[in-house]
Amino acid sequence: MSLFSAASYASPHEGYFLKASFYSSGSRTASGEHFNQHGFTAASRTLPFGTRLCVTNPATGRSVVVRINDRGPFVRGRDLDLARGAAVALGMIERGTATLKIVRLSRSASISL
Amino acid sequence: MSLFSAASYASPHEGYFLKASFYSSGSRTASGEHFNQHGFTAASRTLPFGTRLCVTNPATGRSVVVRINDRGPFVRGRDLDLARGAAVALGMIERGTATLKIVRLSRSASISL
Repeated sequence: MSLFSAASYASPHEGYFLKASFYSSGSRTASGEHFNQHGFTAASRTLPFGTRLCVTNPATGRSVVVRINDRGPFVRGRDLDLARGAAVALGMIERGTATLKIVRLSRSASISL
Repeated sequence: MSLFSAASYASPHEGYFLKASFYSSGSRTASGEHFNQHGFTAASRTLPFGTRLCVTNPATGRSVVVRINDRGPFVRGRDLDLARGAAVALGMIERGTATLKIVRLSRSASISL
């Protein structure tokens, strides 16, 4: 599997790369949870709510763990929308979008960093 | 193993809790690397340089991955000293110290979150 194939969820525990943006507005997420723009959460069109991803910004070397609690982004060519707090921590606010390395985490999942 | 036994490195891939503080001064780390206070790095007295830890602040629910590149903290009762950038991301700046959940990561290590 190419590590650069966007939006490939075939091998959940390997690292792959996704195009991500961030958002800070809204009051309610698609999961029903209150939206906290400072939280480490994210929106995905396909991943189940509650999925945890270890997300790395190669440009800054920073990694955070985000939890999927919303649906989106509804913009072509973007696969993940991070709550602003996670984007701040990853150092991607100025550029607005970033190509991030993603590792899907689960109980006792195998992880390579 | 109790999850609350501080500084227990016996079972590296389980979660355990450590008392952590943060630091922002210094120019050179014990690994020889330049100290970047905005980096996601940390000091430990015992863990090998290059070790990656997934660190969660239960008070904020935020998790980041830090890499050990320095030695410390040399204060009784504290087990981990985070570069300020990681502490900001975890939301522990105001309190100064925090009890953090730690999962040690390695290539293909088992991780539970």
